[in-house]
Amino acid sequence: MSQDLFIGVDIGGTKVLAAEVSPSGEVLGTAHRSTPGRRVELELVEDALTEAVTEVAAGRPVAGVGLAAAGFVDAAGERVMFAPHLPWRGEPTLTRLSSRWGTRVALDNDANCAALAEIELGAARGVDSALLITLGTGIGGAMVLGGQMVRGRNGMAGEFGHMQVVPGGLPCECGLTGCWEQYSSGNALVAFVRARVETEEYAGCALDELAAGDPLKITGPAVTAAAADGDALALAAYESVGSWLGVGLAGLVAAFDPELLVVGGGVSTAGDLLLAPARASLEASLVGRLHREVPPIVATGFGAEAGVVGASLLARRLTAAES
Amino acid sequence: MSQDLFIGVDIGGTKVLAAEVSPSGEVLGTAHRSTPGRRVELELVEDALTEAVTEVAAGRPVAGVGLAAAGFVDAAGERVMFAPHLPWRGEPTLTRLSSRWGTRVALDNDANCAALAEIELGAARGVDSALLITLGTGIGGAMVLGGQMVRGRNGMAGEFGHMQVVPGGLPCECGLTGCWEQYSSGNALVAFVRARVETEEYAGCALDELAAGDPLKITGPAVTAAAADGDALALAAYESVGSWLGVGLAGLVAAFDPELLVVGGGVSTAGDLLLAPARASLEASLVGRLHREVPPIVATGFGAEAGVVGASLLARRLTAAES
Repeated sequence: MSQDLFIGVDIGGTKVLAAEVSPSGEVLGTAHRSTPGRRVELELVEDALTEAVTEVAAGRPVAGVGLAAAGFVDAAGERVMFAPHLPWRGEPTLTRLSSRWGTRVALDNDANCAALAEIELGAARGVDSALLITLGTGIGGAMVLGGQMVRGRNGMAGEFGHMQVVPGGLPCECGLTGCWEQYSSGNALVAFVRARVETEEYAGCALDELAAGDPLKITGPAVTAAAADGDALALAAYESVGSWLGVGLAGLVAAFDPELLVVGGGVSTAGDLLLAPARASLEASLVGRLHREVPPIVATGFGAEAGVVGASLLARRLTAAES
Repeated sequence: MSQDLFIGVDIGGTKVLAAEVSPSGEVLGTAHRSTPGRRVELELVEDALTEAVTEVAAGRPVAGVGLAAAGFVDAAGERVMFAPHLPWRGEPTLTRLSSRWGTRVALDNDANCAALAEIELGAARGVDSALLITLGTGIGGAMVLGGQMVRGRNGMAGEFGHMQVVPGGLPCECGLTGCWEQYSSGNALVAFVRARVETEEYAGCALDELAAGDPLKITGPAVTAAAADGDALALAAYESVGSWLGVGLAGLVAAFDPELLVVGGGVSTAGDLLLAPARASLEASLVGRLHREVPPIVATGFGAEAGVVGASLLARRLTAAES
């Protein structure tokens, strides 16, 4: 059983990550693809997933594949109903891929998968109530209560990224405006820098050289690297994204009063560059903060791999339930 | 047992309502007092409560009193830790009043009490997941999951009114700015009218006469009465408060995905004047609304009496547990 090959696939707004994951959550091998986008034929997305899974499998038989999708997954875990950054709109994805790959496939929201990894093996193990926030292209979220995931009436609980934080604010891929993820996410980090690179305010910053006249050349990893080197513009971007993270978390803590806040996703790999301003802003924005315990904000135990680890656990669960 | 006298007391930011309540939730008699305010000696508040309870009891022995307080109540249900509109700051209120009155006393947050009434006897009976919003002086809230109230780590879950909806927005009694209750509550309704009464935009509206040069004369009930008569300014106030109600609910539905939304409190007695704009705004502000069921917004089964009914149930539970 333990040598059976289980693969987790994290399907984000910009990239697909497939990984072989051990039962204890160790990532043993990975494959990467770009996400084809949200206005393409869905076959292109399925092809990208197939390539990534095939590369990880490297000819070995696959016992199960878990998919972590950046979108709304139906309560049965069979379809992605809607995804701001992906082309799915309720197609029978699970059935299609399971039959194409000839193996068991499980599907859930990426944030729920990340939360599953944290609950079973990571930062939220043994915790009664927690909120889990994934900062990737957008914001993913999950709620844990009594050690269980809160799924919601439509299986859509945890879509924190589309709570309005600025009336009439920035337009969002979801069709609304002022959504939290427009101010705190990987996209928000890059947008902050692109809007300010090569301006007088940040003249001479290291990112100017990278942009070389084209702000669109700026990427998330480049901002993170520049921030780690102390670049003023990159640090300001993390300060902004981190502060907005804290403001949103303060609202969620007011509503839900959890024991723990876990932050994961690509942006969270920057650690305290993100979490220090988030903690300061949470303290400053939380109602009754002198009369309560402010929950700690901790980084995910799995970093950017929480999604694939959780997806692999989902596939292992499915297989265990069927055998 | 059923003829034992149980009294519920709702302690809001502006008024105290005490009521004798039957086991089935019928209000049999009431007494009203003004809330002394938040910068007074707490004895003044306790005196007001004592007067109201004494008036309802009218010389009969009291089996139990339940208190519904507009503030943060500790997890043990013994102290109000913090209340934006009341002077309590962690004093042993339950012990003080129980010993002063010589009867059993139970204490909880007013929104939790209202939710208890709705869950046991009202609009949320038999519902698995619901959000309950009380629009009084501010916003009270409660979450129901699996038919049970979600209390939170510090017993403070459901403080929806202090989620920030406008960055750098209106100052709130809680010390923060831009809190939801500054835009959707009884206070917000009155503030909207006071800021616009006797201006050119609303020249000749019925409320001009009432204000007679002093906008501070405008009260919530006056606005509700004027709106029912079709007054343009009063209707605009309900449109604004209702729309903000919908925006905030859309965020909470994105986060929690509940089956039902129940709106109570004094402002909700206006019915569709409040709920129609709230429903429109919820539809317009909810992420993925074409791919999900939008939960219905219903008025509380108890109107402004949900707090006292729930408080009386709390006292009955306490007595049942002890006997």
